[in-house]
Amino acid sequence: MKDQIIIAIDAMGGDNSPDKVIEGISLHSRSSNNIYYKIFGNKNLIVPLIKKYFLKSELYELIHSDKVVEGEDSALTAAKKGKDTSLWLAIESLKQNKAHAIVSAGNTGALFLISKLNLQMIDKIDKPALSALWPSKRGMNIVLDLGANIECNSKNLIDFSIMGSALLKALFDNINPKVALLNIGSEELKGNAIIKDTYKFLNDNINPLFEFKGYVEGNNIMEGNINVIVADGFTGNIALKTAEGTSNFIISELKKALTSSIIGKFSSFLNYNNLKEFKNKLDPRLYNGAILLGLNKPVIKSHGSTDSIGFCNSLKVCEKTIRGNLIDQIKQNIK
Amino acid sequence: MKDQIIIAIDAMGGDNSPDKVIEGISLHSRSSNNIYYKIFGNKNLIVPLIKKYFLKSELYELIHSDKVVEGEDSALTAAKKGKDTSLWLAIESLKQNKAHAIVSAGNTGALFLISKLNLQMIDKIDKPALSALWPSKRGMNIVLDLGANIECNSKNLIDFSIMGSALLKALFDNINPKVALLNIGSEELKGNAIIKDTYKFLNDNINPLFEFKGYVEGNNIMEGNINVIVADGFTGNIALKTAEGTSNFIISELKKALTSSIIGKFSSFLNYNNLKEFKNKLDPRLYNGAILLGLNKPVIKSHGSTDSIGFCNSLKVCEKTIRGNLIDQIKQNIK
Repeated sequence: MKDQIIIAIDAMGGDNSPDKVIEGISLHSRSSNNIYYKIFGNKNLIVPLIKKYFLKSELYELIHSDKVVEGEDSALTAAKKGKDTSLWLAIESLKQNKAHAIVSAGNTGALFLISKLNLQMIDKIDKPALSALWPSKRGMNIVLDLGANIECNSKNLIDFSIMGSALLKALFDNINPKVALLNIGSEELKGNAIIKDTYKFLNDNINPLFEFKGYVEGNNIMEGNINVIVADGFTGNIALKTAEGTSNFIISELKKALTSSIIGKFSSFLNYNNLKEFKNKLDPRLYNGAILLGLNKPVIKSHGSTDSIGFCNSLKVCEKTIRGNLIDQIKQNIK
Repeated sequence: MKDQIIIAIDAMGGDNSPDKVIEGISLHSRSSNNIYYKIFGNKNLIVPLIKKYFLKSELYELIHSDKVVEGEDSALTAAKKGKDTSLWLAIESLKQNKAHAIVSAGNTGALFLISKLNLQMIDKIDKPALSALWPSKRGMNIVLDLGANIECNSKNLIDFSIMGSALLKALFDNINPKVALLNIGSEELKGNAIIKDTYKFLNDNINPLFEFKGYVEGNNIMEGNINVIVADGFTGNIALKTAEGTSNFIISELKKALTSSIIGKFSSFLNYNNLKEFKNKLDPRLYNGAILLGLNKPVIKSHGSTDSIGFCNSLKVCEKTIRGNLIDQIKQNIK
């Protein structure tokens, strides 16, 4: 079918799978057009779920495998399990051009290693980067790398700027990427040599894809004046997880405060709708779907502990990266 | 006087100084005993404030200087202004053993550079570290280094573990320091070579001052099962500022949610006391007072934008580091 998008899905990874995966596919199928799902996993478990969640037969193909990569497997162990695990088969379908993107809620290391073994790096990119959505006061940011590379050189960070900008444009219409390097001061003189070299290059060499805004400090990531935040994988991971921990801490303190008395409970009830909106805005399922950038096909990692709504959102990310021509955008802008 | 603590105070730095400084001293003097304040700054500005805030004459000495380090001065410019700025004079009083600790709400770089020029490093410590308090679900954590050293070796991180533990014990009674290294995974294999070497050393060499708990990820900093978080200055600064930004973001979203309708306003009013408690717990003034560790006297940095209550808390930090024998604790435990 013309313009049909084919998504390869490893249905077996993550908590409560394949149940949440099949329900997530069913949810996604009802809000999108022209998507075809290649579902990889154990048919004995999946067929009943397809019935349970009323997934239409013309929308999917089920490719059986009874070999599964477990969450505890090291990436290497997972790869050594062979080419007939549901994860390997799903990724291989991209290599054979039988699908446009892959999503898995399972073992992250295995997804990345098996993807790297099967797919090709985009020409002139040395290292793939893990990127994700991060809310800001004015919308959504892209942050990368979130942990794929502990150490990065200046060339890597420049590539990440391009890949992150292309991703932002693919995911959101009519948005102009504004790139900044995550650093410990906003002045030009701060930071280590790699960050300073990257600053100089991006400042001196204009890339039509994005506007370079210099450095951003951790406390300004969510202000909304920049929307692509670039860091090495160590720094990006520290920032992302610290934000997650801070958010959890504040929400748990808030819950305690709001329910610590009868009046508190009563007034929180009155305020239910407002607080619901607040909660929705911070709902991590909204941001589900991290993207491994740098390979010649989009590789999407759903959070292992998300539910069907979160998994549905990671399918939306797959869809948008394809419809938004993510890979072509990167290829055209990489030097 | 026996056991009297003398605190040297640069009264001229930070927003709304010396007003907030003198009010902060006055607040502190009413809740503590046996403290003597050496106030350094412009007497024409300070004398009227001392009257305004009823600071008792037997509790302080005012050392006049009309030369001030400005917030915009580079550390070097500040040092070159000479030995008669209020900041230099305040620090010099520690060198001359005329005060036990110094606090300033002014220029951070200048405070650190002039302190390093005047005070001695503790024997066997190579680099000073900036540390601060960070709330957790079960109390307070110490985090260091927050930006004094962009790059650190394994010896530095081991020193930070000892200094952070000594600080925690000085600030809080009956608490057992539990040290962890901030890293991007909890497994032994993750992280860069410096972090792995530090892990191995701390795991193999028990220090009676603290319990070594391995690695901590950003999302677990605030859980409360560890209370001394060690990182190089780049990583620590990224984590601290990201937490600050996340907290600001959530609080601003919460405010919007709670006041976005008449019912919202009404029920928030009913809930006022509970929310006040919540706000108090997150009040940054509570955590005011970052400590530069590694010099032979405590050097305390108050946040420049804090108010008199925040400044009063930084005076409490000064007091506790002295009464808790911080410097001796470090000396005894450093290898």
